[in-house]
Amino acid sequence: MTPHPIIEYTSEASWSMIEDKFSPFAKETLSKLITFLEDEILPAVKVAHLQIPADPEARWKTVIPIVAELKEKAKKLGLWNLFLSKAHYPEFGVPLTNLEYAVMAEILGRAGPIGPEAVNCSAPDTGNMEVLARYGSPEQQKKWLVPLLNGEIRSAFAMTEKNVASSDATNIRTSIRREGDEIVINGHKWWISGAGDPRTKIHLVMGKSDPGNKNHYNQQSVVLVPADAPGVKIIRPMHVFGYDDAPEGHCEIIYENVRVPLDNLVLGWGKGFEIIQGRLGPGRIHHCMRSIGAAQASLDLMLQRVTDPGRKTFGKYLYEHGTVVADIAKSRAEIESARLLVLSAALQIDKYKAKGALKEIGIAKFVVPSMALTVIDRAIQSFGAEGVSQDTELAGRWAGLRTLRIADGPDAVHIQQVGQRELKRVPQLVKKTAEIKKRENALLQKVGLSKAHL
Amino acid sequence: MTPHPIIEYTSEASWSMIEDKFSPFAKETLSKLITFLEDEILPAVKVAHLQIPADPEARWKTVIPIVAELKEKAKKLGLWNLFLSKAHYPEFGVPLTNLEYAVMAEILGRAGPIGPEAVNCSAPDTGNMEVLARYGSPEQQKKWLVPLLNGEIRSAFAMTEKNVASSDATNIRTSIRREGDEIVINGHKWWISGAGDPRTKIHLVMGKSDPGNKNHYNQQSVVLVPADAPGVKIIRPMHVFGYDDAPEGHCEIIYENVRVPLDNLVLGWGKGFEIIQGRLGPGRIHHCMRSIGAAQASLDLMLQRVTDPGRKTFGKYLYEHGTVVADIAKSRAEIESARLLVLSAALQIDKYKAKGALKEIGIAKFVVPSMALTVIDRAIQSFGAEGVSQDTELAGRWAGLRTLRIADGPDAVHIQQVGQRELKRVPQLVKKTAEIKKRENALLQKVGLSKAHL
Amino acid sequence: MTPHPIIEYTSEASWSMIEDKFSPFAKETLSKLITFLEDEILPAVKVAHLQIPADPEARWKTVIPIVAELKEKAKKLGLWNLFLSKAHYPEFGVPLTNLEYAVMAEILGRAGPIGPEAVNCSAPDTGNMEVLARYGSPEQQKKWLVPLLNGEIRSAFAMTEKNVASSDATNIRTSIRREGDEIVINGHKWWISGAGDPRTKIHLVMGKSDPGNKNHYNQQSVVLVPADAPGVKIIRPMHVFGYDDAPEGHCEIIYENVRVPLDNLVLGWGKGFEIIQGRLGPGRIHHCMRSIGAAQASLDLMLQRVTDPGRKTFGKYLYEHGTVVADIAKSRAEIESARLLVLSAALQIDKYKAKGALKEIGIAKFVVPSMALTVIDRAIQSFGAEGVSQDTELAGRWAGLRTLRIADGPDAVHIQQVGQRELKRVPQLVKKTAEIKKRENALLQKVGLSKAHL
Amino acid sequence: MTPHPIIEYTSEASWSMIEDKFSPFAKETLSKLITFLEDEILPAVKVAHLQIPADPEARWKTVIPIVAELKEKAKKLGLWNLFLSKAHYPEFGVPLTNLEYAVMAEILGRAGPIGPEAVNCSAPDTGNMEVLARYGSPEQQKKWLVPLLNGEIRSAFAMTEKNVASSDATNIRTSIRREGDEIVINGHKWWISGAGDPRTKIHLVMGKSDPGNKNHYNQQSVVLVPADAPGVKIIRPMHVFGYDDAPEGHCEIIYENVRVPLDNLVLGWGKGFEIIQGRLGPGRIHHCMRSIGAAQASLDLMLQRVTDPGRKTFGKYLYEHGTVVADIAKSRAEIESARLLVLSAALQIDKYKAKGALKEIGIAKFVVPSMALTVIDRAIQSFGAEGVSQDTELAGRWAGLRTLRIADGPDAVHIQQVGQRELKRVPQLVKKTAEIKKRENALLQKVGLSKAHL
Repeated sequence: MTPHPIIEYTSEASWSMIEDKFSPFAKETLSKLITFLEDEILPAVKVAHLQIPADPEARWKTVIPIVAELKEKAKKLGLWNLFLSKAHYPEFGVPLTNLEYAVMAEILGRAGPIGPEAVNCSAPDTGNMEVLARYGSPEQQKKWLVPLLNGEIRSAFAMTEKNVASSDATNIRTSIRREGDEIVINGHKWWISGAGDPRTKIHLVMGKSDPGNKNHYNQQSVVLVPADAPGVKIIRPMHVFGYDDAPEGHCEIIYENVRVPLDNLVLGWGKGFEIIQGRLGPGRIHHCMRSIGAAQASLDLMLQRVTDPGRKTFGKYLYEHGTVVADIAKSRAEIESARLLVLSAALQIDKYKAKGALKEIGIAKFVVPSMALTVIDRAIQSFGAEGVSQDTELAGRWAGLRTLRIADGPDAVHIQQVGQRELKRVPQLVKKTAEIKKRENALLQKVGLSKAHL
Repeated sequence: MTPHPIIEYTSEASWSMIEDKFSPFAKETLSKLITFLEDEILPAVKVAHLQIPADPEARWKTVIPIVAELKEKAKKLGLWNLFLSKAHYPEFGVPLTNLEYAVMAEILGRAGPIGPEAVNCSAPDTGNMEVLARYGSPEQQKKWLVPLLNGEIRSAFAMTEKNVASSDATNIRTSIRREGDEIVINGHKWWISGAGDPRTKIHLVMGKSDPGNKNHYNQQSVVLVPADAPGVKIIRPMHVFGYDDAPEGHCEIIYENVRVPLDNLVLGWGKGFEIIQGRLGPGRIHHCMRSIGAAQASLDLMLQRVTDPGRKTFGKYLYEHGTVVADIAKSRAEIESARLLVLSAALQIDKYKAKGALKEIGIAKFVVPSMALTVIDRAIQSFGAEGVSQDTELAGRWAGLRTLRIADGPDAVHIQQVGQRELKRVPQLVKKTAEIKKRENALLQKVGLSKAHL
Repeated sequence: MTPHPIIEYTSEASWSMIEDKFSPFAKETLSKLITFLEDEILPAVKVAHLQIPADPEARWKTVIPIVAELKEKAKKLGLWNLFLSKAHYPEFGVPLTNLEYAVMAEILGRAGPIGPEAVNCSAPDTGNMEVLARYGSPEQQKKWLVPLLNGEIRSAFAMTEKNVASSDATNIRTSIRREGDEIVINGHKWWISGAGDPRTKIHLVMGKSDPGNKNHYNQQSVVLVPADAPGVKIIRPMHVFGYDDAPEGHCEIIYENVRVPLDNLVLGWGKGFEIIQGRLGPGRIHHCMRSIGAAQASLDLMLQRVTDPGRKTFGKYLYEHGTVVADIAKSRAEIESARLLVLSAALQIDKYKAKGALKEIGIAKFVVPSMALTVIDRAIQSFGAEGVSQDTELAGRWAGLRTLRIADGPDAVHIQQVGQRELKRVPQLVKKTAEIKKRENALLQKVGLSKAHL
Repeated sequence: MTPHPIIEYTSEASWSMIEDKFSPFAKETLSKLITFLEDEILPAVKVAHLQIPADPEARWKTVIPIVAELKEKAKKLGLWNLFLSKAHYPEFGVPLTNLEYAVMAEILGRAGPIGPEAVNCSAPDTGNMEVLARYGSPEQQKKWLVPLLNGEIRSAFAMTEKNVASSDATNIRTSIRREGDEIVINGHKWWISGAGDPRTKIHLVMGKSDPGNKNHYNQQSVVLVPADAPGVKIIRPMHVFGYDDAPEGHCEIIYENVRVPLDNLVLGWGKGFEIIQGRLGPGRIHHCMRSIGAAQASLDLMLQRVTDPGRKTFGKYLYEHGTVVADIAKSRAEIESARLLVLSAALQIDKYKAKGALKEIGIAKFVVPSMALTVIDRAIQSFGAEGVSQDTELAGRWAGLRTLRIADGPDAVHIQQVGQRELKRVPQLVKKTAEIKKRENALLQKVGLSKAHL
């Protein structure tokens, strides 16, 4: 039996753990995806980069031609919307589990942002499609979900606010209020990813519709705002370590008296918190797996660099110096353990939905980005100055990943939540300990040692 | 369906990954083992400790009564020799895979040394039984393997030598030479675990039988030496951070003109290296899983300590201070990822034997002990002075685990080997990169950008 | 000019920083101390160890002969009570500053516990002598301080209590109450260092004399309790990892209706907290400098080990493998920066007393023990199994240092206090920032850019 | 006595260590510099940033007006060329030691690149001025050094080459050859800092003039190349993460048949290696101190952020959550120990010149940038998304510092060199150990214990 091509991209050991959980369809799709990655996506990375104009205006009006081509090819191959699990979204989804897609997300993560985009699996569209598929009205789905699923438009999710400690969602200040048949939105958001893209037609805007509600989690609503609605003002792109990430960007936006029809409310008044909760689980796993792909691809670059005969110094290969081999071994081990961690979290989502996998998702969320940053930083170091420059993908990858320690809740929030969840095991532990202590005391008495130890 | 009791001892997520790889027999055995752990082994830990006399002579002549009782009970329950996989040792083994036993080893590791001993799964007996089962002659098996399998005697493996850099096996100096119908052994060993135990009847001694052989890996042989053979001199126990680990101990031994019959040669002249190679793979995984059990049990202690109302300072629970919750979250994540790593290595052994799982075993070997030391050290810190004392098991656990970063090859050796194995992926990477580069160049030319980038 | 011999034991760079702060007397004393270390103390370390009997009773009744000899020699040489700064204790002290003694403490720390003891600078005697010199009545000084200063007796400080979160001193439960002309003491202490020593004649016992006092810091008193007073029951030595540290030990003690005359009260009723506060500053610096000496001595051992031709493996010196050279460089850098940190803290004490150097002392307290543990752990690893055994001093050193992360307040307490002190800089920072912002706004307006940035 | 204003910017403890080594002139200059920093430089940082045009062409042709103003003011105040120590450069220098300037460099480092530039202390000009002051001919000094000292022109040092492992200087490929009365230069350099600046008039170019010379360190020469010489082609700016660092930049440059007169040779044929050696010591210390300033300024920002009432989440200040206070304490300790390390290295340079301070410089070089990156990363995390953006200086600072782990030799080179230097202590250690062992053996014999220990 020929080994599955995934073995060249993941570890044999992790594949052994999950292979029997893959359907034949998933295995075949994975094979096709790997071929597509090698034949089409990876060779297009540099072209895509060069097709973004340097001009500070023009770069924000660009639809990268080669990416558009990739999307057409992918759709024909059936490599499309792979993130949307049929089990959770029977109407729109693809028959892949979260676990199965997780492996594909790692593969896509090797190619930077164009990987997921080529197969219509880019954030924030993925989360937005999930929201619309789960909570959207038929009209909302027809108008926005269908073109998103077709890859014809893109979308933004407007939640983070300027000058607000937004890891606490109750701090949100954007106002969403009803005025007759209309909803009026006023707010100041930033870090709205994708809002710079000329194809982005719709913003899902989170705001406060009922700030006085005693239940803090019923104060928020989500409203669909067309990107070209009057009053939607894109102020500027936020930079990430000097990168503007055009054409998608992470934009600062003012919504000034933006008016949309009542039908643009998603799910219902006060349902905003419920919507964002449902949105986050699988998306975090996708981010993690793409990060692992980025880390693995960086280690692969490092391996080639340190064995490059042209890089010898003082008569020795780079890998023969200092701690390079140890750094490689540690990177290998760290990637591998992170991968298993995320795969197991994906499996938990398949078994118990995101709600039943919160601890696993939380662990992955704070472990994986830091791990990937460390691995990529080692690779950067092995490349010297080239590593921090535009001539490898390493610096850009690092900067992109650095935001993952902040986005969707900073590390500290997830660390605290995982720690608090662990504390919930205490009553059961105390009970067990008491039972064992009781038996121990009986034993000590039986053997006449009950007073041996003060 | 009732969830399997293992879920209280491992993580649900890791159990999800492997549950479908467990046979009904393995699941049932695991249940029984957990009951036995809770009802019998854990309550006996302190008793066992107190049954070792303080007297410096007497403590080395002790067979701990409660452990002997545990062994009888375990044998009756069929919880016996669980480490010996039938798939690899059809004649003697138990129908459990390495993966299945790995989970049990974690459970046993929660109870310190008496856990494995109670079910006849203690090192170094386990490795010695594997050697005798695989390489022993029928006579050798009858004389030594059968009583070992029955838990009637114990054994030692005499490899490490004093004043020798023994992580390089070719440095060994002990002489093993034929003289007529006898084999004569002369050498100075130390750190021979179990040699102090009054039940230890046999030493497997590694030495050089053919020091001039050009093939460095054919110079060594292994000989069976009865513990009471004239010339076997136990000099002293080596201490580990102040612990003598009586009654088993790690002994310094001089073999002075020890004579044994020719029949005591194992496998054949010059087969010593082959024997130790075969001995190491699964044993390392067992050590790792027991270490994970020790780490998990320590985290469980820490959880109870930091929520103990009697430990409040300045009006707050310990867990409400400083970085305690974060430390717990990190420990949880580190244990979980290490567990998945080792489980996946165990599965690789099941699929490809130890030889086909060297990278996975190597990673586990250098990752797990350090992880466990870190977790236990955090637990120690949460217990304050009590944590370093004889009143918890934490300090003893830590010291025992510290040796695992040295035994069976120090960390550095495994790190280098894993790194070197990664470097072997380079030719394949270079080939793939060249293919992608070729396609990239074609694309660049096609879109007229071939010279955009110098 | 001949360079001062200290240069072989510290770094030239740190010596350059402080040399001009040393008096001629201090330089000469330091020279003598180094000669004494090399000629007398270091050669006596193993002898001292062997002169402690193995017998579990006898080892607690031992006055180590060679240490007694060292003390006589040191006294004659004027190398005596070097810790007691004349500037702070004009009547009893030696004309050395804290900075000057700090360098000597590092030197003494190279020799393990017998170093400080040889020159009558052992904890807890040092702190106790400070207490008696500062707060003792003339009678108390005559009876206890003089023989302590002469090295004729030893002493204990009984503060830590069993089952009490003692890093919060208000939790103390030992009762100290007046009954007629007597003070009655009842309490359960442990980890009372030195209490096992047959020469220990006096315990300074901390307890609650006024538990109802609204000022939590006036509830405690300190009383002098003769070691042989009726009701003083030494229960057992606490172990540190596997070490009992006989003959000094860290004892569990019950004070049961112990009665002492009223004159044995130190300083006054309710002055207990004031006394322990005054006791801690310089003592912590001494501990830190001894730890640095231990770390430096361990690095020196490691250097010799990794260059030992007898330790070659696979044809290479140990230092030619893996990360050894990097580990050495890091150890060097970590020792050096820790040394400068502690020296600067000692200088702050000289300038502003302990109260004016709390931040510096706090930083040293949480940085140095961890640093030293890391350096010693690397040295252990370079020695392999020998490193964890009784055949080098490394394991014992490590275990002793591990307690420093707990004693005198666990790391977490000092980390929090240093952090909180940093937070006190905020108002000043906010003020400066506002001033700069004001000037910035004026400038922006002046150059017409005041609205360039939203 | 009023405390010196430096105390608000450094630690009191480090100032205590060095205050008595400061001349009155140095103290006064330091005071003036602090006032200038607060009144002029810091308020100008944002203006300077906004005065750099966004246009991809125009930004490279800019002389930032506010910086030009700052330079005029600084010169008038005598805050000028502070880096050039009179002790080493009697003709041109300022009467400040390296230690004294080191403290000023930290102050300047708080303000990012415009700090040093305002007082004419920017790299690479500083190193280039040192080269010209030490090795330049009177004509070279008149033509290039004087305008550099006056801040009228700027300069570049062209050493690093593309596709060359340049941490080994013998790998350099740029050709420098004599042709009649001219020198012809051909080579491909990159990362040439400052070469983008319109004021840069001169490049010091390192190349091979005698590639066949058996002494590898005599193959190189340094030649002065006017920036506008025919054949000097600036290809592009290299980016650092996403920053182009205009207008200075780090440029890729091709020197194609560039011809300069023979007089442009510096020092002599084959003296290139000697020149770069002399150039590196103090410069590295300056970089380190500026890094410490950047770290300290970032901690100061973090302190203000975590106490900002507007940043409360879940009803608590940021500093009341998770590990924030601990992170602050660690940052404080790490900055402080790094500062002392670099100050002591600067003092060693003053005492023994750079050659006599190689170990100290090496330690500072690998310790400080990593420390600063860690501290700044923590500050970034406390600022959330704002921290990675253009709205604080943190991300830019981080990226700039990341290059310091690569420039002037990557960390690994310095780590290895420091480790190797430590190994040179071994013979002396072995000798001392042997002497102590001899005395120990005598003692053991004397007390009758010579055979107690096998």
